[in-house]
Amino acid sequence: MSRIVMKFGGTSVANVERIKNVAAHVKREVDAGNEVAVVVSAMAGATNQLVAWTKEASPIHDAREYDAIVASGEQVTSGLLAISLQAAGVPARSFQGWQIPLKTDAAHGAARIADIEGDTLISRMTDGQVPVIAGFQGVGPDNRISTLGRGGSDTSAVAVAAAVKADRCDIYTDVDGVYTTDPRIVPQAQRLNKIAFEEMLEMASLGAKVMQVRSVEMAMVHKVRVFVRSSFDAPDAAQTGPDGQPLGTLICDEDEIVESQVVTGIAYSKDEAQITLRRVADRPGVAAGVFGPLAEASINVDMIVQNISEDGKTTDITFTLPTSDQARAIEILNAKKAEIGFEALNTEADACKVSVIGIGMRSHAGVAAQAFQALAKRGVNIRAITTSEIKISVLIDTAFAELAVRTLHSVYGLDKA
Amino acid sequence: MSRIVMKFGGTSVANVERIKNVAAHVKREVDAGNEVAVVVSAMAGATNQLVAWTKEASPIHDAREYDAIVASGEQVTSGLLAISLQAAGVPARSFQGWQIPLKTDAAHGAARIADIEGDTLISRMTDGQVPVIAGFQGVGPDNRISTLGRGGSDTSAVAVAAAVKADRCDIYTDVDGVYTTDPRIVPQAQRLNKIAFEEMLEMASLGAKVMQVRSVEMAMVHKVRVFVRSSFDAPDAAQTGPDGQPLGTLICDEDEIVESQVVTGIAYSKDEAQITLRRVADRPGVAAGVFGPLAEASINVDMIVQNISEDGKTTDITFTLPTSDQARAIEILNAKKAEIGFEALNTEADACKVSVIGIGMRSHAGVAAQAFQALAKRGVNIRAITTSEIKISVLIDTAFAELAVRTLHSVYGLDKA
Repeated sequence: MSRIVMKFGGTSVANVERIKNVAAHVKREVDAGNEVAVVVSAMAGATNQLVAWTKEASPIHDAREYDAIVASGEQVTSGLLAISLQAAGVPARSFQGWQIPLKTDAAHGAARIADIEGDTLISRMTDGQVPVIAGFQGVGPDNRISTLGRGGSDTSAVAVAAAVKADRCDIYTDVDGVYTTDPRIVPQAQRLNKIAFEEMLEMASLGAKVMQVRSVEMAMVHKVRVFVRSSFDAPDAAQTGPDGQPLGTLICDEDEIVESQVVTGIAYSKDEAQITLRRVADRPGVAAGVFGPLAEASINVDMIVQNISEDGKTTDITFTLPTSDQARAIEILNAKKAEIGFEALNTEADACKVSVIGIGMRSHAGVAAQAFQALAKRGVNIRAITTSEIKISVLIDTAFAELAVRTLHSVYGLDKA
Repeated sequence: MSRIVMKFGGTSVANVERIKNVAAHVKREVDAGNEVAVVVSAMAGATNQLVAWTKEASPIHDAREYDAIVASGEQVTSGLLAISLQAAGVPARSFQGWQIPLKTDAAHGAARIADIEGDTLISRMTDGQVPVIAGFQGVGPDNRISTLGRGGSDTSAVAVAAAVKADRCDIYTDVDGVYTTDPRIVPQAQRLNKIAFEEMLEMASLGAKVMQVRSVEMAMVHKVRVFVRSSFDAPDAAQTGPDGQPLGTLICDEDEIVESQVVTGIAYSKDEAQITLRRVADRPGVAAGVFGPLAEASINVDMIVQNISEDGKTTDITFTLPTSDQARAIEILNAKKAEIGFEALNTEADACKVSVIGIGMRSHAGVAAQAFQALAKRGVNIRAITTSEIKISVLIDTAFAELAVRTLHSVYGLDKA
């Protein structure tokens, strides 16, 4: 017997028929003798409709009221799934954030989870009931409904799994796991059976859209094993691989990954713009002078490259940011030109960041060199490079994105046989 | 300065544009220096959609989950109106039943209000905020969302008005008040400026669909003055009569009605079926024997007529009930025939109950006789009669319904000049 939290996203609960299919998935786990709690998103489209009404009422609006309105979507799904489970003979009960309670901070619209009371849920589960929890929401210190921001249902699920000390958190989604790279670009991409939290974090933040970054972070911190799998297969079909295990990807501690590959996957992120400040005065505090004003304007800077100064007096700083923030960033920096002290600002859009990710890199030399050689051979020019313990990212022209991803996927032996 | 509760129904908040119109109505009252709380229904159609999903999930379903699902409709409206008010410069905050709290009993799906904490709402109002309360719902003793049944938003509004000790509860609806009878039948019907609680209770339960019976009962018990008015007029237009007062009908204590008419209105109710039990043994307990089993089957019996027994041994009992329950009632009674002890059961559908209502009847003799004469003159046959202190009801063939209503409306001088 295991204790499992199952999470179903918007497309998996898009209508009542699909909600009944979800109930069948849950029943399968209950019938197998597991203790189960479920976290659900709003029916696909529901949240967009609610957000549209909110904007129509007033383009600028109170986040508290936004939360009260938008959270109703998950409330509906939780009730409908509870009814569907009961109809299938599975005792179930819906829970809203304020009923658990799932307490958050006061940052309405993008609240962070402060605390979840696990006792009520655990006692329901040990009594043989399935709590069906409205995802994406909690209750703030002001006793008002709060929401966790888009994709918050994944975070809810992981947080609930941590609170009830679940053996596993199953994320049912429209893909059947995490792949070595985007299968739309590389048909030879393979589903990973396991991936370490750190690797998934890089994959998630670099554009593999399986799970929200925040939920992976939370899983890593609380050591919640997350299993990503598809909700579209028939619940009763033996949706298992040759080893008898269900198909999907387990996101877990690296200790659980017995034989890890050097490289686990290739991620990419388009729509990056690049800004270079030329001959910036090389003195303490200059980086803060550049990035402070951008942070204040909520501009998310990604790669930052600063070379060792040649003359000991000036240096060049290059960084990337979303194309949508490019114009605003340039305006801010030019306004502060004298203060920061740079000579020229060069900028280019149409950049793409491609990253090679793998915890195995830590113990293997030459991984980066292999990437650079392979890209050079294909004539892909590298604009900038950053590395961490478990990843190498290169900034290239967007036109070369697919070529680079395919080349790297192949060079590290990730292509399916 | 007055303290006012304003209630808006589903058609008044059917879309965001209408919700903004509602905000303008509220702003007008706030600008006039009043303390205001608002109670809202779900957007027209929203509740039907939610109920349909609930039935699709399972035709028979848990009332607790039904409540969690269906209550989301009012939650959305309350948030949207709060945002619209804020955008119009009126400080506002939405409140769900559990946040007030508006406590109900445990009868999910048709809960009754047990208690409302008025302090939070009053302190918001005295601080210059407008609480926007999701109607139709509260929180049960199990800390779960409960709903008050269809039309429960009127009841919410009256209960909130009682809890905050409001001077008036304004019910904005798609008609501009309570009429002497149905204007679709009698074009000469007039809007009443005032009507006593008791009269409105008779009007409401007899088919004048302006307000729910329960909400009128609650208004009478708590002496909440209710003003019925239209939400479709432009909020800023001088929607007033020749006396400078807004157009509508005040439902109030009879003490407030200085010069009351003998007859206030004519109500009618179609789709009544009539059952007569012939030669029922005239002994104690026989009425209980007849109506007990019907009550157990939740069949709502309306008029009951039992004449003085002629021979001292047997009597005839006639009663009416909704046509939809007729077949079931006959089945139940025939099954108990020996036990009850009657000789024959006669039944007819297509009955209509027409009622003459007015608190002035108490002090005026001959009102009933006037009705009977007028109907006889028009050839309308009366099947049965019941009377109370303030009303006379006659059961007639449905074919004569309109004729009877028009005749009575005219004979009591209610026709517009």
